[in-house]
Amino acid sequence: VSQTPGNEVAAWAERVQQGDRRALARAITCVENGEALAAELLAALYPLGGHAHVIGITGAPGTGKSTLVNALAQAYRRRGLTVGILAVDPSSPFTGGAILGDRLRMRDLAGDAGIFVRSMATRGSTGGLSRMAADVVHLLDAAGYRRIFIETVGAGQDEVDVARLAHTVIVVEAPGLGDDIQAIKAGILETANILVVNKADREGAEQTMASLRMMLDLQRPEQATVSHHGTLMAMAAHTPEAPGRWQPPLLAAVATEGRGAEEIVDAIEAHRFHLATTPEGAELRARHAEIELGRALDEALRRLLAQRLAREEYARLLADVIDRRVDPRSAAEQLIRCLCSPGES
Amino acid sequence: VSQTPGNEVAAWAERVQQGDRRALARAITCVENGEALAAELLAALYPLGGHAHVIGITGAPGTGKSTLVNALAQAYRRRGLTVGILAVDPSSPFTGGAILGDRLRMRDLAGDAGIFVRSMATRGSTGGLSRMAADVVHLLDAAGYRRIFIETVGAGQDEVDVARLAHTVIVVEAPGLGDDIQAIKAGILETANILVVNKADREGAEQTMASLRMMLDLQRPEQATVSHHGTLMAMAAHTPEAPGRWQPPLLAAVATEGRGAEEIVDAIEAHRFHLATTPEGAELRARHAEIELGRALDEALRRLLAQRLAREEYARLLADVIDRRVDPRSAAEQLIRCLCSPGES
Repeated sequence: VSQTPGNEVAAWAERVQQGDRRALARAITCVENGEALAAELLAALYPLGGHAHVIGITGAPGTGKSTLVNALAQAYRRRGLTVGILAVDPSSPFTGGAILGDRLRMRDLAGDAGIFVRSMATRGSTGGLSRMAADVVHLLDAAGYRRIFIETVGAGQDEVDVARLAHTVIVVEAPGLGDDIQAIKAGILETANILVVNKADREGAEQTMASLRMMLDLQRPEQATVSHHGTLMAMAAHTPEAPGRWQPPLLAAVATEGRGAEEIVDAIEAHRFHLATTPEGAELRARHAEIELGRALDEALRRLLAQRLAREEYARLLADVIDRRVDPRSAAEQLIRCLCSPGES
Repeated sequence: VSQTPGNEVAAWAERVQQGDRRALARAITCVENGEALAAELLAALYPLGGHAHVIGITGAPGTGKSTLVNALAQAYRRRGLTVGILAVDPSSPFTGGAILGDRLRMRDLAGDAGIFVRSMATRGSTGGLSRMAADVVHLLDAAGYRRIFIETVGAGQDEVDVARLAHTVIVVEAPGLGDDIQAIKAGILETANILVVNKADREGAEQTMASLRMMLDLQRPEQATVSHHGTLMAMAAHTPEAPGRWQPPLLAAVATEGRGAEEIVDAIEAHRFHLATTPEGAELRARHAEIELGRALDEALRRLLAQRLAREEYARLLADVIDRRVDPRSAAEQLIRCLCSPGES
């Protein structure tokens, strides 16, 4: 492993900040590979960020999220804003998800210097996915992309974790995906700031809209009398004059034709405005910082442990756990005890 | 919070060990609620376990996993073995998953003292799900249940984590659930020790069997010439005389009628035998212990941090991260530094 002096990292960080796409791509690879340099780069670039609005998009496979993200990216480009797209794909040896996704996207978005697309495979990145996504967002942010989409598939913990990084969470549904999938997604629905029914020209779209409207009503019983029109009307209640709780609008789209994209972008911008004009925005920023600081603390502790832990002591206690002479918690407590007496181990 | 002296915990642990269902149920609740007593109970009960064979069952919603688990439980009861069932449900405020699941199960399995069923909601248990499931397994194990089923829904990280607790992982498929779902599950397919196509009397079952057989072939290119018959024939190669890699059998079932249950139980027992007669079994036990010890270490470290961390220092650095004066990693490093100088904080 070659040593890169601090001034080289500084020069690299500067190229990222100036919008050098190759420098940015290399920085992201660095983060993905968990290289030590990534920490240095992020230390240099994190203070330059904080200007991007991060939009998390999630939904079951088959809802057409990628196509929708492309349509939204193009709508933002028409408004003169730069866009970063981070697609978190459940990769598999059979579908090769991430690479395929990049290629399909490139076809639509190629040649536009105002858009940067990157796919990240979830495979083999147990637990670290959300941290990696956060770091990539910081890089895109520092590189000057003003709207950043994080696209995830599914409704597992990974997706919830990634959604927690976003300023605005969009949950995408589509007609005809079955009740089971709807049910499993009820949990993630609660995190939605904007709900989109894509493929709205298909059979069953009305029904999907209606069932989502019902779920939205169930979520806020205190406002059950408010009707949802599937339009942005509901947002009228969220002007700075009447700052209340954000009421997730329910919007229809046909992403393949770009239909609904402008309205969704309007909704994202309205939510951004809501965050900027209510205490929610500051709370969200604080929550993001707390999540990231907590995660960094966990990692720093684990490094400390790896440095200080007496190898033989660990092996002995692991054998005790395997053979059931001691339970994992008690073994851990014994190991921790030697952690803070560095002179002895 | 009332103090429970150590001898009360010992008496409680003894009742659990003697098969007192109420004591067991209370112990599980204790684990779910994260009560401090849980650690004491588990310290007492963990050394008594290690006798149960743990079977992880996973698959998309709609594959009929719960019905299958019930059929397998009944098959095991006919063989005179006691069965614990832990259903990890994606709960939601709309479906009330966990409770519903328990009720449906109770109808089939009620009144049999040899079966213990418990549902665990995933809601609100961010990240801790897998640890909780592990602890509940230890309780069921110590209480004398000889086969323990952990049932999870979906293909997210949660499910993979829970599968890592099992000795035998069964992945359940069903015809007609769509290619998208198949694709997303390719990752979890690799973890399968046994593959089951449930609802095998439905249209498309042959096709589902064929596509799974193809996936199995893709997974081991070196054995691509071996044909899969959808029977247990393949396992003939795994006698102790010829200990090789376990070759996941592909089995058909119609769980609602109990069809296929005996064959699946045969396959589970064959896999158990395989683990007992090859180094894989010991490796698996060591891996389980390592996962649990690692997790316990993380938790112990976090507790240590909470005790030692200077509150003002934390608040100051969090504000620095929020306002982007410092990045999360550098802030964490600063906080860690004061961790091992307990006299100063």
